[in-house]
Amino acid sequence: MEYRFSDKISTLQPSAIREILKATSDPSIIPLAAGNPAPDAFPVDEVREITERVLREQPITALQYGISEGYQPLRETVTAWMKEHENIGRDFDSTLILSGATQVMDLTTKILCNEGDTVICEEPSFIGSLNCFRSYGCKLMGVPVEADGMDVNALEEVLKTADNAKFIYTIPNFQNPSGATMSLEKRKKLYALAKEYNVIILEDNPYGDLRVAGENVPAIKSMDEDGIVIYAGSFSKILSPGIRVAYCIAPAEITAKMTVGKQAEDVHTACLNQMIVYEWFRNYDVGAHIKKIQGIYRKKLNLMCDLIDEELGDFVDYVRPEGGLFVWCRLPDGVDMLDFVRRAVEKKVAVVPGSAFLTDDTKSTQYIRLNFSTPTDEGIVKGIKALGELAKEYN
Amino acid sequence: MEYRFSDKISTLQPSAIREILKATSDPSIIPLAAGNPAPDAFPVDEVREITERVLREQPITALQYGISEGYQPLRETVTAWMKEHENIGRDFDSTLILSGATQVMDLTTKILCNEGDTVICEEPSFIGSLNCFRSYGCKLMGVPVEADGMDVNALEEVLKTADNAKFIYTIPNFQNPSGATMSLEKRKKLYALAKEYNVIILEDNPYGDLRVAGENVPAIKSMDEDGIVIYAGSFSKILSPGIRVAYCIAPAEITAKMTVGKQAEDVHTACLNQMIVYEWFRNYDVGAHIKKIQGIYRKKLNLMCDLIDEELGDFVDYVRPEGGLFVWCRLPDGVDMLDFVRRAVEKKVAVVPGSAFLTDDTKSTQYIRLNFSTPTDEGIVKGIKALGELAKEYN
Repeated sequence: MEYRFSDKISTLQPSAIREILKATSDPSIIPLAAGNPAPDAFPVDEVREITERVLREQPITALQYGISEGYQPLRETVTAWMKEHENIGRDFDSTLILSGATQVMDLTTKILCNEGDTVICEEPSFIGSLNCFRSYGCKLMGVPVEADGMDVNALEEVLKTADNAKFIYTIPNFQNPSGATMSLEKRKKLYALAKEYNVIILEDNPYGDLRVAGENVPAIKSMDEDGIVIYAGSFSKILSPGIRVAYCIAPAEITAKMTVGKQAEDVHTACLNQMIVYEWFRNYDVGAHIKKIQGIYRKKLNLMCDLIDEELGDFVDYVRPEGGLFVWCRLPDGVDMLDFVRRAVEKKVAVVPGSAFLTDDTKSTQYIRLNFSTPTDEGIVKGIKALGELAKEYN
Repeated sequence: MEYRFSDKISTLQPSAIREILKATSDPSIIPLAAGNPAPDAFPVDEVREITERVLREQPITALQYGISEGYQPLRETVTAWMKEHENIGRDFDSTLILSGATQVMDLTTKILCNEGDTVICEEPSFIGSLNCFRSYGCKLMGVPVEADGMDVNALEEVLKTADNAKFIYTIPNFQNPSGATMSLEKRKKLYALAKEYNVIILEDNPYGDLRVAGENVPAIKSMDEDGIVIYAGSFSKILSPGIRVAYCIAPAEITAKMTVGKQAEDVHTACLNQMIVYEWFRNYDVGAHIKKIQGIYRKKLNLMCDLIDEELGDFVDYVRPEGGLFVWCRLPDGVDMLDFVRRAVEKKVAVVPGSAFLTDDTKSTQYIRLNFSTPTDEGIVKGIKALGELAKEYN
């Protein structure tokens, strides 16, 4: 039988970039292309203790069907935590527990967008989210990211011309892939523009707790007097990505629609996993754990950046990020970026070609993305040195 | 802000039926409206032992990101098990692990259907799946279910007239809500028709292992020489629904697209949960466990049906199912079904109005759905007796 696939899924053809990425699954290759949390950042003993207790004391709750909105004690815990730590959440807001933060992007698109509608996003932006928007047949319009975040003047131009723009997608802290953090001034301007043009903001903050330098900037959601911000938070980077638990804080009218959408997608997020997160907040010092992993990432970020300065200082341009997982490096003009990436793979180092993060991934860019959380410290040293060797070949 | 929601999600407005169902969340009400597995069917001690061991021996695999296709050892185990027990799976097929079987319906619709395409389904059918198809803006065309399954002559008429029909959705064993099991002859005819009209079959089999009488009928997927059947299997009814692990067996060209769709939805199914299922198959006698829960459900099914015969024998018509979780009862002509359901709730018994399972839930029907797995035995007795009392009020 010759299969006929939907238009929206057919646009997600494997591209040349994805073929390069495939090559990087070889375990002998140093993984500077990934985005996994460092394994020593997982609170393994705590999760084991909690899970044993949950399955001893409340096995039926853990194994039976739950409700689509999420495990009520966890919803309350997240609501209180986010109010206390980020001043997020007003009377009109509600909290949902979801199966990873990608599901927030998915449900936002499902409830707001018809096929052909426009999603405005930072350019570059996280490929997983871009593919999610594409999988609903949405058009993408990119707004350039500067060292202090989205170019808000360019955003205004896009808002003026966009057809049926339904939401603006932003990763304000340690943006993936650029590493940029949006300034408070720009956050305020973004909020004002969204309000003026009657467009929702989707604020995705997976990396916010991974700050290793500088000062916290208030979340856009903390300014949300008008019910126009959907906030996506995750436990993937501070607890575990493998258990797939995240949350969304948004106006209740919006979370009600998301709940209907979630019910039709996966019914509810696994109960055992939600109970693990809840018990972790209830019985352990989450704040201290976050401080601990900030220490892990500070060391790895500085190790990678110091080595880049040493080995690649004359070759690449980059801004040292204040947190997150990624370093976004610009290759010199005249260097063929895709060729550089292919040659890096030949030297057993995987990096991501920057074009993967563009709204049109057939466009060219001089950037590559490096990740410092997945490789061991030894891997970082070997990987950057190998890239330094490769750079010399271009002189 | 006045929110503008997508057309596809706006069609999923809460209906009168759902308002009735809401009333049934009151814990003082006897839950004959639910569909939860019986709590004593969960292998609680085994899950606790397995989880403790997994988190001791392989914590990083359990807590780190996994791949979208699923945990490889579980994929292999499921593939071998289904080949051995159901003769399902050919060289062109591939197995995916998903976050509950609803995700199979979701991804099938996502990859095959544009907005406005048609999904052909049994009428009545599972409301969760119907809402999933609706959430992609699909039109539903229903085919009546008879005591031996889908009316295949009516199916042929629908296939002749349907616009852009992309797949036929069927629950061949102990169908939800009708309890009907499709005969082998009808399965063969359904397969032949799908092949002739170039339409995929989505075979959803959540209840197949819950047979309490009669003989197993071969799966439609076991006849699939042509790569036209997508098979949805689940561990929700034999192990636990709360851990949200299911699987899909379909031609690799189809599972490749589903993988892309899944990546954009929830990245992957929780690793810990997949490892629990894998270790359960590896270390315990799953066949013996299935026999044990068949015993539990045989007892509950017979208890409910014997009581219906006794208390409601002159009032309702029904066919005693050979398995599954539901009894589908027809009220006498002249009885207002929705009124009966409302009055049952007043008597503290929740049942589902049959109209919830129609492609157009504003149409009328004389049926109600009863569930025997969720209530305790005492609840079954009290519930059916209360319905018997209510029936007398109609004489």
